[in-house]
Amino acid sequence: MLPESLRRVIQLLSRLPGVGEKTAARFALQLMSDHQLSAGLGEELSTLSSRLRPCEDCGHLAEVPAAGKTLCSICMDPKRDGLKVCIVAKIQDLLAIERSGAMRGRYFVLGKLLSPLDGIGPEELPLDRLEKFLQKHLTEEVILATPPSVDGEATALFIARELESRGIRVSRIASGVPHGGDLEFADQITLGRAIEGRRLL
Amino acid sequence: MLPESLRRVIQLLSRLPGVGEKTAARFALQLMSDHQLSAGLGEELSTLSSRLRPCEDCGHLAEVPAAGKTLCSICMDPKRDGLKVCIVAKIQDLLAIERSGAMRGRYFVLGKLLSPLDGIGPEELPLDRLEKFLQKHLTEEVILATPPSVDGEATALFIARELESRGIRVSRIASGVPHGGDLEFADQITLGRAIEGRRLL
Repeated sequence: MLPESLRRVIQLLSRLPGVGEKTAARFALQLMSDHQLSAGLGEELSTLSSRLRPCEDCGHLAEVPAAGKTLCSICMDPKRDGLKVCIVAKIQDLLAIERSGAMRGRYFVLGKLLSPLDGIGPEELPLDRLEKFLQKHLTEEVILATPPSVDGEATALFIARELESRGIRVSRIASGVPHGGDLEFADQITLGRAIEGRRLL
Repeated sequence: MLPESLRRVIQLLSRLPGVGEKTAARFALQLMSDHQLSAGLGEELSTLSSRLRPCEDCGHLAEVPAAGKTLCSICMDPKRDGLKVCIVAKIQDLLAIERSGAMRGRYFVLGKLLSPLDGIGPEELPLDRLEKFLQKHLTEEVILATPPSVDGEATALFIARELESRGIRVSRIASGVPHGGDLEFADQITLGRAIEGRRLL
């Protein structure tokens, strides 16, 4: 019932995370009726993936420079210190922590988590790059901010063991009932962790 | 915290309906990591709005042909009859009705609804085009499928009056409790309409 070219756009849009065919159709119709938006987005997207690369130091996203090493804005910021390094699974997590304002050190993006079920073993983690990063910044503390899931915990534990012998303090972000959350509806594991991780007042 | 070119993409994506900055960022990061998707979408969107136009007959979307009149797939389908014409506010509504399979006639897309608050009066409705359409297809019944909102009802009533003198039967889609809906949570107006529009069994 829709023109072929619009169907192609809908099919592509429905590959975005959390977007089904109906939402994709809404997006497509909006793009269709807003020439400025579709032309602008078209131009940006055509060249997007060639202009961006992971930062060669930390794995965060970075604009590819005309010459030299590809570094992200955090790695290029001289006001940040690398004494504390926060290790995250993905860029979105880095952005979320950054928005919270609770971390003023540097970050390191793993890009993946250990996952025996998906066949992702330790050799796929960027451990060499991490080691170089920590040496370069004379890091004193590593904060493991992988998600509180099975894969995230396993990865945190694995990295903690790897760093054990190097005189670097390793910490793990707290897991418990979220701010504003209702204890009544919290799951057992979260409540268990909240009790276990209790702090003296 | 993000490269400039990615920020531009996020800003554009957040203009899609129902997409906030966080969702736009998720989309952008997905596009960023899927070269095939971003390049494909980029190419399609760059030319999208120049390749599509409203159908000159019914207002539905149509691919602009190399030569001749721009007509949509429904208007070009000889197996459809125009004895029954379903009038809808927007293309999405046409698609929804089409998916239901309940309407095998033709459609007419108004593109807008009467809305005194937004300053949209009868002169902005495509009445001339509608009249030509109904004459061309020797239409016997018009089904008003504008939404059951204040503007939708006003528009339906207005068109019904306009067509009154022309010997065309005018009907309005039923409004009531939706299939699978819970009466307990239905609003007063919906319940009122459900009672009012009751049918003998």
